[in-house]
Amino acid sequence: MSLAIISPSRDVSPWLEIFKKEVPDLPLSIYPDIPHPDEVEAVMLWQHPKGIINEYPNLKLICSMGAGVDHILGDETIPTHIPITRIVDPRLTFSMTNYVTMGVLNYHRKWNRFQAQQQKKLWDMKAPEAEVKIGVMGVGELGGDVLDKLSYLGLEVVGYGNSPKPDFDYPYYYGDQLEAFLQECNVLVCLLPLTADTRGFLNIRLFEKCKQGTYLINVARGKHLVEEDLIEALDKGYLSGALLDVFHKEPLPESHPFWAHPQVEITPHIASITNPSAAAPQILENYRRMQAGEELMNKINRNKGY
Amino acid sequence: MSLAIISPSRDVSPWLEIFKKEVPDLPLSIYPDIPHPDEVEAVMLWQHPKGIINEYPNLKLICSMGAGVDHILGDETIPTHIPITRIVDPRLTFSMTNYVTMGVLNYHRKWNRFQAQQQKKLWDMKAPEAEVKIGVMGVGELGGDVLDKLSYLGLEVVGYGNSPKPDFDYPYYYGDQLEAFLQECNVLVCLLPLTADTRGFLNIRLFEKCKQGTYLINVARGKHLVEEDLIEALDKGYLSGALLDVFHKEPLPESHPFWAHPQVEITPHIASITNPSAAAPQILENYRRMQAGEELMNKINRNKGY
Repeated sequence: MSLAIISPSRDVSPWLEIFKKEVPDLPLSIYPDIPHPDEVEAVMLWQHPKGIINEYPNLKLICSMGAGVDHILGDETIPTHIPITRIVDPRLTFSMTNYVTMGVLNYHRKWNRFQAQQQKKLWDMKAPEAEVKIGVMGVGELGGDVLDKLSYLGLEVVGYGNSPKPDFDYPYYYGDQLEAFLQECNVLVCLLPLTADTRGFLNIRLFEKCKQGTYLINVARGKHLVEEDLIEALDKGYLSGALLDVFHKEPLPESHPFWAHPQVEITPHIASITNPSAAAPQILENYRRMQAGEELMNKINRNKGY
Repeated sequence: MSLAIISPSRDVSPWLEIFKKEVPDLPLSIYPDIPHPDEVEAVMLWQHPKGIINEYPNLKLICSMGAGVDHILGDETIPTHIPITRIVDPRLTFSMTNYVTMGVLNYHRKWNRFQAQQQKKLWDMKAPEAEVKIGVMGVGELGGDVLDKLSYLGLEVVGYGNSPKPDFDYPYYYGDQLEAFLQECNVLVCLLPLTADTRGFLNIRLFEKCKQGTYLINVARGKHLVEEDLIEALDKGYLSGALLDVFHKEPLPESHPFWAHPQVEITPHIASITNPSAAAPQILENYRRMQAGEELMNKINRNKGY
């Protein structure tokens, strides 16, 4: 019985080091070198080749190597009876929140303007702050932490999700209250999970309903955003700018208009990166629990998609 | 008996509006139009002409129009028996902390690097975060809040002040423990009050003792920094960069080397700006207390200088 890593696009050596240290005799194989597929009881996945899961007839556990599971749920060939787990990493939350906070504060304190003033040797103190109220779409582990931290800094916040949350700590809208939510905020942070319902959620119909000149921060998944709609929304003034960390196609192709757009700022999917030293022990623990028949940690709900 | 405003360099109309609304019959005069100097019992000062205080023989209260009082204590002609008060404004703290947090996060998340990458259409995800530990010099109202907020974001912090503080909430050094403090941190935030002791505190002897490549943020007063020493410290690699909001001479002269220095980032003294709607009521309250013989709010200690 063994654990297999299927992550063809990523260097897995930091994971191997930790496994070797924690469980020296762990039966482990690494795709594409998996000599005994029938012995594989658990797989760790990151951007696996579609359909490959069915090569392991005795599979009992699928572990995402990151916080997201859209890369797994997007493969319809995966049998629905196998439980799927994700990584919950405080450091991942730390990085995500601090990236979003940086984006919010740069907008709030007009950092771009002051950088441009420096280039022109211009001393202009007028109106140094933009009033902001930050709307966070997606209020789970990550979105909830962003609301908490921004609020602690004294900034006004509001959340949006897909289900009612009585007793939520912050002003909150859900479901078809989207328009009311958008009218509350002028900075919009997307931290939704990627599901069939949220794919393309950030589109021109949503941007039209925003307060004029809203600033967008997308740190969730590239596929939440209809990329050509963002350009249109900037042209029409629905939005005043955007900070994007994720894209439909990564790396972002050199010919993509976002690179040189004066109102779009780009980072290369670095807002939050899974840290193997936090994530590997979670996978080991779930592997142990699966074998012992115990309840899994951070198991996702397939119907919800997260 | 009256209150006089002596603030020749600033537009005082927002203050007048508030006074008019709060105390319509307030006996108020505005420098240089002060017809009855002998009736002036209280003055509000911001960059007043040196020596002018002695024209008011019945003065009983001096109010700084901002958080700092160095502009008052720098005038040795002011009689030492007159109490001096300052403004304590939560919004002022909010702005200062959020400015510092922006500076810290931009350094932590290598914002300059990612902006440069975008210009070159370069997708490079490697090492997206700089490890930071933030040392805050000056742990009063403002420095204490910066420590609190950065710590809440999950960042490591350490404080430095001039006196022992048993039971302080954060790691803390004082007095001649400066070198040990500097060896603890790689981001240095100056929020010291400007006194005879702290003038020129940020000089080459201090920079030499920093961890190599420390990043400096000065949001206190321009005169804390020996400006030519900063250039030398950057050239020698003691420091890796600086974010400066305050300068010896403001506006910063066009010929100043900071404007075009690739490792220096400048804002025009906007980190935190006194908000008359918060500050004016504090001055009215102290004017009332002075007349009633009650204890003043936010009275400064002349010997300490803050």
